[in-house]
Amino acid sequence: MNSHKTISFIGAGNVATHLAKAMYEAGFNIEQIFSKDINNALVLADEVDAIAVDNIRNINATADIYILAVKDDAVEDILRHIQKKDIFIVHTSGAIGIDVFEKTGFSKYGIFYPLQTFTKNVHVNFLEIPICIESNYEENWLIDIANELSNAVYLIDSEQRKKLHVAAVFACNFSNYMYHIAEDICHENNINFNILKPLIKQTAQKIILNHPKDVQTGPAARNDDKTIENHINQLEQHPTYQELYKLITENLKKLNE
Amino acid sequence: MNSHKTISFIGAGNVATHLAKAMYEAGFNIEQIFSKDINNALVLADEVDAIAVDNIRNINATADIYILAVKDDAVEDILRHIQKKDIFIVHTSGAIGIDVFEKTGFSKYGIFYPLQTFTKNVHVNFLEIPICIESNYEENWLIDIANELSNAVYLIDSEQRKKLHVAAVFACNFSNYMYHIAEDICHENNINFNILKPLIKQTAQKIILNHPKDVQTGPAARNDDKTIENHINQLEQHPTYQELYKLITENLKKLNE
Repeated sequence: MNSHKTISFIGAGNVATHLAKAMYEAGFNIEQIFSKDINNALVLADEVDAIAVDNIRNINATADIYILAVKDDAVEDILRHIQKKDIFIVHTSGAIGIDVFEKTGFSKYGIFYPLQTFTKNVHVNFLEIPICIESNYEENWLIDIANELSNAVYLIDSEQRKKLHVAAVFACNFSNYMYHIAEDICHENNINFNILKPLIKQTAQKIILNHPKDVQTGPAARNDDKTIENHINQLEQHPTYQELYKLITENLKKLNE
Repeated sequence: MNSHKTISFIGAGNVATHLAKAMYEAGFNIEQIFSKDINNALVLADEVDAIAVDNIRNINATADIYILAVKDDAVEDILRHIQKKDIFIVHTSGAIGIDVFEKTGFSKYGIFYPLQTFTKNVHVNFLEIPICIESNYEENWLIDIANELSNAVYLIDSEQRKKLHVAAVFACNFSNYMYHIAEDICHENNINFNILKPLIKQTAQKIILNHPKDVQTGPAARNDDKTIENHINQLEQHPTYQELYKLITENLKKLNE
């Protein structure tokens, strides 16, 4: 075992739970778990041999790194309430800039952002989860820790992280909405949505090794206006889907130019 | 080996090639391969022990089933040029109705539509490819053949197939476009697009066992207006992406109601 850093967690939700367990399994010493709800703190603390605390004043200053993993809305408020301002503290949010620390009186801070959707009680393989790092203090500590958890560690500054967050919305939230529309259309027409699943899987698979633009298929990619017109007519009952179909098709056709 | 039907192919492109090879490997007897380009016909015919022909008049009438696998635009024209109208003929297109056969003088016809994107020289596992069947004649022949090639055989009529085709555009072509936008945003900001790939994979994986609506995440799903506003500002340089972001977000918020 190498000289592992000592870590305390502020938060006991999904991200904190997955991260604390992964670190514990990797041999890190977890010191304290803070949660306003002592039961949540106790459950996680028990799993990672740590001390549970529910009063923010009881967070001690002896850990090497404090990981703040709470809801985006709560980050700033909790930071204000932490009285020991000279600890090295990082947050795990994709949406919040690094400036939140300066604003709340800290001087040693960073970001440790695992880019994945976490669900409690659903096991994740941390090795495959990208971790995005930014720090104004001992960045190498964060990089070393990330490298022990994951095979995909990236240095991403706050400006990039904001853009990355928008990109993730398109790549993941919006593609999931496209799946929803497809299921909705299938459902309405008594078509088993399973028919489309191999194609969805293949579409996601293809971009692992190719640029999405290079493997774009479909009527818009081949300027097949007759099929596009038919499709728009098929969507007559769904003005919102029709509008979306037109807008995306218009954009896709520009890709061909 | 059971009493396999004899099959002839009209067309020697991607779909014909993958389908003929899969059938040949499954033990079917492939009789003729027609292509206007004799070299294409010869290449495929050689692989499946068939006779190549490049004159449509030389297609004989002895096969049990004729599979027309050509570009959508060419289907009707080729059907008109086939003189033997009492053969059992099927096409492989998702976009073309079954009425094309009646219109061109055939009486025994159907659809044998493998729902996947094919690329020549890229191996596909046919077992995982859904095959959609419709027929006015010996439908069970088509079902039996499909069952020997694939684990996913569906009876889909022409009306359903038209809807399915629209659904596939959303699920696959449009989700791929979402990946493209994400890559474009990453590229512009010197962010490695690989960061998003595990999340893309996971997003596609999640809907294998869940309804997309039930696993929808992101700022729109949780009505996080502050983040949405930030994202819209981030897209200032890309009016088309901004417009799309707004429209999809608006629709996604309606899902929550």
